[in-house]
Amino acid sequence: MKTVIIGGVAGGMSAATRLRRLDETAEIIVFERGHYVSFANCGLPYYVGGVIRDRANLLLQTPESLASRFRLDVRIDHEVTRIDSRSKTVFVRDTLTGEETSESYDRLILAAGATTQSVLAHSDIPLHTLRTVDDVDRITAILGAAALPVSAVVIGAGFIGLEAVENLVLRGVAVTAVEFGPQILGPLDSEMAAPVLDALRSRGVDVRLGTVVTGTLAGRVQLSDDTDVAADFLIEATGVRPDTSLAERAGLRIGESGGIWVDDTQQTSDPSIYAVGDGVEKIDAINSQPTRITMAGLANRHGRASADSIAGTPAPAAPAFGAAIVGVFGITVAMVGWSEKRLVAEARPHRIVHTHPASHASYYPGAETMSIKLLIDAETDAILGAQIVGGSGVDKRIDILATAMAGGLTASALTRLELAYAPQYASAKDPINQLGYVADNLAAGTTRSLQWHELASALEDGAVLIDVRTSGEFAAGAIPGAVNLPLDDLRERLAELPDAPLVVHCQVGQRGHTAARILSQNGFDVRNLDGGFRTWTAGVS
Amino acid sequence: MKTVIIGGVAGGMSAATRLRRLDETAEIIVFERGHYVSFANCGLPYYVGGVIRDRANLLLQTPESLASRFRLDVRIDHEVTRIDSRSKTVFVRDTLTGEETSESYDRLILAAGATTQSVLAHSDIPLHTLRTVDDVDRITAILGAAALPVSAVVIGAGFIGLEAVENLVLRGVAVTAVEFGPQILGPLDSEMAAPVLDALRSRGVDVRLGTVVTGTLAGRVQLSDDTDVAADFLIEATGVRPDTSLAERAGLRIGESGGIWVDDTQQTSDPSIYAVGDGVEKIDAINSQPTRITMAGLANRHGRASADSIAGTPAPAAPAFGAAIVGVFGITVAMVGWSEKRLVAEARPHRIVHTHPASHASYYPGAETMSIKLLIDAETDAILGAQIVGGSGVDKRIDILATAMAGGLTASALTRLELAYAPQYASAKDPINQLGYVADNLAAGTTRSLQWHELASALEDGAVLIDVRTSGEFAAGAIPGAVNLPLDDLRERLAELPDAPLVVHCQVGQRGHTAARILSQNGFDVRNLDGGFRTWTAGVS
Ligand SMILES: Cc1cc2nc3c(=O)[nH]c(=O)nc-3n(C[C@H](O)[C@H](O)[C@H](O)COP(=O)(O)OP(=O)(O)OC[C@H]3O[C@@H](n4cnc5c(N)ncnc54)[C@H](O)[C@@H]3O)c2cc1C
Ligand SMILES: Cc1cc2nc3c(=O)[nH]c(=O)nc-3n(C[C@H](O)[C@H](O)[C@H](O)COP(=O)(O)OP(=O)(O)OC[C@H]3O[C@@H](n4cnc5c(N)ncnc54)[C@H](O)[C@@H]3O)c2cc1C
Ligand SMILES: CC(C)(COP(=O)(O)OP(=O)(O)OC[C@H]1O[C@@H](n2cnc3c(N)ncnc32)[C@H](O)[C@@H]1OP(=O)(O)O)[C@@H](O)C(=O)NCCC(=O)NCCS
Ligand SMILES: CC(C)(COP(=O)(O)OP(=O)(O)OC[C@H]1O[C@@H](n2cnc3c(N)ncnc32)[C@H](O)[C@@H]1OP(=O)(O)O)[C@@H](O)C(=O)NCCC(=O)NCCS
Repeated sequence: MKTVIIGGVAGGMSAATRLRRLDETAEIIVFERGHYVSFANCGLPYYVGGVIRDRANLLLQTPESLASRFRLDVRIDHEVTRIDSRSKTVFVRDTLTGEETSESYDRLILAAGATTQSVLAHSDIPLHTLRTVDDVDRITAILGAAALPVSAVVIGAGFIGLEAVENLVLRGVAVTAVEFGPQILGPLDSEMAAPVLDALRSRGVDVRLGTVVTGTLAGRVQLSDDTDVAADFLIEATGVRPDTSLAERAGLRIGESGGIWVDDTQQTSDPSIYAVGDGVEKIDAINSQPTRITMAGLANRHGRASADSIAGTPAPAAPAFGAAIVGVFGITVAMVGWSEKRLVAEARPHRIVHTHPASHASYYPGAETMSIKLLIDAETDAILGAQIVGGSGVDKRIDILATAMAGGLTASALTRLELAYAPQYASAKDPINQLGYVADNLAAGTTRSLQWHELASALEDGAVLIDVRTSGEFAAGAIPGAVNLPLDDLRERLAELPDAPLVVHCQVGQRGHTAARILSQNGFDVRNLDGGFRTWTAGVS
Repeated sequence: MKTVIIGGVAGGMSAATRLRRLDETAEIIVFERGHYVSFANCGLPYYVGGVIRDRANLLLQTPESLASRFRLDVRIDHEVTRIDSRSKTVFVRDTLTGEETSESYDRLILAAGATTQSVLAHSDIPLHTLRTVDDVDRITAILGAAALPVSAVVIGAGFIGLEAVENLVLRGVAVTAVEFGPQILGPLDSEMAAPVLDALRSRGVDVRLGTVVTGTLAGRVQLSDDTDVAADFLIEATGVRPDTSLAERAGLRIGESGGIWVDDTQQTSDPSIYAVGDGVEKIDAINSQPTRITMAGLANRHGRASADSIAGTPAPAAPAFGAAIVGVFGITVAMVGWSEKRLVAEARPHRIVHTHPASHASYYPGAETMSIKLLIDAETDAILGAQIVGGSGVDKRIDILATAMAGGLTASALTRLELAYAPQYASAKDPINQLGYVADNLAAGTTRSLQWHELASALEDGAVLIDVRTSGEFAAGAIPGAVNLPLDDLRERLAELPDAPLVVHCQVGQRGHTAARILSQNGFDVRNLDGGFRTWTAGVS
C-alpha cells in the first residue's frame, strides 16, 4: 500500500508517523512545498519575540530524523500542483529546480492547511504573514538589521495577531494594531475582551478598532480613519481560509463551510483520498453543523485518525468544540464552544453566568482574579460555551469546562464536580463549582439575574439600582444612578426601598446574590446584576 | 423552622449560609466547641511555615460577620454533648464556663468532622496535632520561643504530614518524618511516591519508613528501629476517623466504613437529622460501595446540599472519587480514584499506563516533566484512577481526568478530548490526549506493555531486554542485563535479535512503543516496558 501525503506539518506528519507505526511495510511519501517539515507553527511568534531563543527548537523533526525513525520519504521543496484522482496520481513540482514529476498513490492524505488572502493588493512597505519559518526569518532579519526605534503595523487583532503584537513589543517595536471589527479577539464577547484591550494600550500598543489599512505611501501606512502611521513593516494576521485549491480541482466535495468535506473517518468524497487539518470542515459539537475550526490539536488528532482509517481501523472523530487559548502580556484568554453573540445570532435560548473568582484559595498568597463567562442552554442546562480571562489557573479551568462539555455534564452538574483541592491550587469550592452554583440558582429560579447590557433599559423602564457594596467601594466608583445600601445593613433598611423593580449589584455578583435572596423573600421584584460592577465596567468600557 | 448545626467550619458553615440564603425566616443556630468558626483548616500548615503570614487570613468568617451578613446565631466555645433525637433536643456545654444548656431543633445538621487518636499514650515532649487554630498557635509559640536549631518529629507521612514537614523545614526546623507504612503518601502507588521521597531527603528530612514512635525519653523520641532522635516537639498526623460519637449515642445508623450513614440527600437514619463532612460515609464512585473520604470540597458541597434538603429542594449527591492534591517542596502530587494496589487488592482487572510528558510544548521555555499513571478498567475501558507527580500543570491534568471520570469518558476517549492549546500552556497532543493514545494502543492490542514490577520475573523467564535509547543514554545508566540497540538502528539490526520473548524500553515509553511496533510487525514477541527507564527507576528505588 502506497500512501502519499500532501503537507508535512501538523496534520500531515502526524498521519505519516502513525501510519508507519501501524504499518511497517507501507510506502509513505510526504510532499512539502516549503523547506521545513514538522515545525512548530504555534511557536513562530515567540521566536520573533526572542522568547524561544534557539531557532532549532522550532523544528521538531527533519526529513532525516523522520527517515531514520519512521522510514518516511519526506520531500521538502516539493509542491503538489494537481491531483488526478482517476489515475490516482499527484503531479509535483520541485520548487527549487522547477522540475515536474508525478507520483501514483493508493491512498492520498490532503493536509495542505490553510491559506490567507492579503487585504493589500500592493504595499511599498515590507508586508509579511507569520505562518512559516521563512516568514519569521524575514521578520527577524528586519528586526536585526533595523536601527531602533522600529515600528510595525499588525493587521488583525485575533489570537495570532495579538501574539504578533506582544512579541514585537517584547523586541522593542512600536506597534499599531489595526482591527477591522469593533473589538479585539472577535470570537470572544466584548466584555471579556475588554481587559486585554486595556493591557495592550497600557503597554503602549496603538490599537485602532473598526479600522482597515487602505494603503501605504512614502513609508507610512494609511488607515481608514484618515490617519497614517509609520511602519518599517506590516504583519498580516487577518485570519485563514481552508486551502481547498487542490481538492476543488480534483473534484472533491467542498463542505458548506468552505472546507473540504470529510466523513467522521476523515475520508473525502473520494474513497481513496483523506483530508485533515485546517483544510477540512469540522462538525460543530454544539449544533452538529459544519464549521471551520483551525487548530493544531484537531490537525494532530485527525492526522492520526486518518492513518487509522487507512490502516483499516477507523475510529470515528468527535465533533469539535473549538477550544482555544492565547497569552497576551501576562493575561491568559481562553474559550470553548459558543459565545453569547453567536447564541444571540442563532436565536438559541441561553442563560449567562459571569464570575470573577480567585485562581486559588484567597487566604493563600499569590491568588489572581480571573473572569469567567459561562453560556448555558436555557432548555437543557447543557454547557454551550465558556470564556475565561485572567492569569494563573485560566488554562486549567477552560480545560475542565471543555472536558465537562465533552462528557455531557450540565451546568448544574458542575456543583458536584470533585476537583483536587489544596490552597495553592484551587478552592474548596472551586471556581468551576461556583459556576455550577450560580447556574443552578438561575435554573431553579432561586436568583434572577440581569446582564450588563440589559441594565440601561431596565433602569429606563423604572427599575431602581441598589449597590450593596460597602460605602468605601461605592465612593471609589459606582454605576451612575445607583443607590448605596450595603448588604450587611440591608435587612435593617428594607423600609427605605422603593416599591419598584429592583436591580442589586455588588463587585462581582456574589453579595448581590445574597442581597437578591433577602429582597425576593421580602416580597421585592429583584434581579442581580450578573458579574457585578466588574462585568458592567468591562462591558460599557 | 429551627435548624441546629453542630460544627462551624467547612461542612457546618456551608450549610448554615446556604440555608439562610434559601430561607430568610429560618432560625439557625451553629454550635462550635472551638473558639473559631469558618477557619481555613487547609491553610494551617502554611501559617506554621510562614507562607501565610497574617493569622487573620486563616479566619474566613467570624461569628460577628456571619451574624451581620447571614443572621446566623453562632455560638463558639459551645460543645454539644448529647443529642436526644426523640425530644429533638441537643445538650450543650459552654466550654469556658462549663454551663450546661439545651436547645430544641426541627432539623439538626451534624458537621462535627473527624477525630484523631494519638499513637502515644504519654509523651514528655510537647505533642500536637495540626488541626485547629489553637494547634498552630501552640506550634508557632514553640517555634517563636525556641532558640535555633529546633528539631521536630512528624508522625505520619501522608498528605497532611508532609505539609507539616515542608512547613517546618521552611521555618528552619530539623525534621524527622516517621511513617509506619512502607512508603510515604500511602494512597499513591510506590513508584509514584518515590520522587517525593527523594525530594524530602534532598531537603535534609530524615525519613524513616516502616517505623513507629515507641515513646519519649529525656527529650528524645524513641523509634521502633531502635534509634532515638532529638525533638523539641512532635506533630501527629497519622490520619483521621469520622467523629461519630454524638451520632452513635443518638442511635443513628453508622455505615460499614465507620462514618455516619447518610442517604444521597445527606439525611441520616433519623429523618430530622442530616450529616455532612468528614464524619459521614461517602459512596465510592468506582464501586458504589461505602467509603471514607475526608476532603474539604466534599464537606463544602454536602454542607450546601444538606441545606437544600432541609429547605425542601434536595439534589441527589454524586458519589465520590477522592480527588486530592498536595504540594511538597515544589513537587505537586495529585490523585483521583483508585490506585493500582487497591485494584490489585480488590482483584479488579485493569490496565496501567505510565507517561512522563512535558507540562507544555517542549519547544517553549519552562516546560517541566511530570509523571502520570492512569488506571483503566480492563473490561469497560473506564478510567478508574490517576496519579500525577511533577511541577506546573499537574493540578490541571488531575482535574481534567477527574472531570473525565465524572463525565464517564473512557480512557480511549481521552484521545478525542479537545483541550485548549497554545505552547506556553499545553501541547498540541496534550499529555491527556497522549494518555488516551497509549491506552488506546493497549486496548486495541497495538502494543503490549509490561509493568516495572513485572520485569524481573519476565527476565527470569527468559525474556531479553532491549534498551532502544541512544548509546549516550545507555552509558549514563541502564537496567542491569539490558542490551542497547538504539531505535533508529533497529530496522537494520533485526538480525542481531535473539529468538526469545523481547522486552523493549526507552526513557519514558514512547520510543519503546515505536520499537515494539517495528518488532511485532517483524514477527517478534515483544512488550514495551511501561513508563520506560524512568518509571522502572522510580519503582525499584
Ligand atoms: C503563528 C501561528 C500560531 C498558531 N498558534 C496556534 C496555537 O497556539 N494553538 C493552536 O491550536 N493552533 C495554532 N495555530 C494553528 C495551527 O498551527 C494549525 O491549526 C495547524 O498547523 C494546522 O495543521 P495542518 O496540517 O492543517 O496545516 P499546516 O500545519 O499549516 O501544514 C500544511 C503544510 O502543507 C504545505 N502545503 C500546502 N500546499 C501544499 C502543496 N500543494 N504541496 C505541498 N505542500 C503543501 C504547507 O507548506 C504547510 O507546510 C497557529 C498557527 C500559526 C500560523
Ligand atoms: C491541616 C489540614 C490540612 C488540610 N488540607 C486539606 C486540603 O488541602 N484539601 C482538602 O480537601 N482537605 C484538606 N483538609 C481536610 C478538610 O479540612 C476537611 O475535610 C474538612 O474541614 C471537613 O469538614 P467538616 O465540616 O466535616 O469538619 P471540620 O471542618 O473539621 O469542622 C468540624 C468542626 O466541628 C466542631 N465540633 C466537633 N464536635 C463538636 C461538638 N460536639 N460540638 C460542637 N462543635 C463540635 C469541631 O471543633 C470542628 O471545628 C485538611 C485538614 C487539615 C486539618
Ligand atoms: C511531531 C509529529 C511528527 C508527530 O509525531 P508522533 O510520533 O506521531 O507524535 P508524538 O511525538 O506526539 O508521539 C505520539 C506517539 O507516542 C506514543 N506515546 C507517547 N507517550 C508514550 C509513552 N509514555 N509510552 C508509550 N507510548 C507513548 C503515543 O501513543 C503516540 O503513538 P501512536 O500514535 O502510535 O498511538 C507531528 O505532530 C508534527 O510534525 N508536529 C509538528 C507540527 C505541529 O504539530 N504544529 C502545530 C503545533 S505547534
Ligand atoms: C465560607 C463559608 C462560610 C461558606 O460561605 P458561603 O457564602 O456559603 O460560600 P462562598 O463564599 O463560597 O459563596 C458561595 C455562594 O456565592 C454564590 N456566588 C459565588 N460567586 C457568585 C457570583 N459571581 N455571582 C453570584 N453568586 C455567586 C454561590 O452561588 C453560592 O451561593 P449559593 O450557595 O446560594 O448558591 C464556609 O465554606 C466556611 O466556613 N469555610 C471555611 C472552612 C473551610 O471550608 N475549610 C476547608 C477549606 S480550607
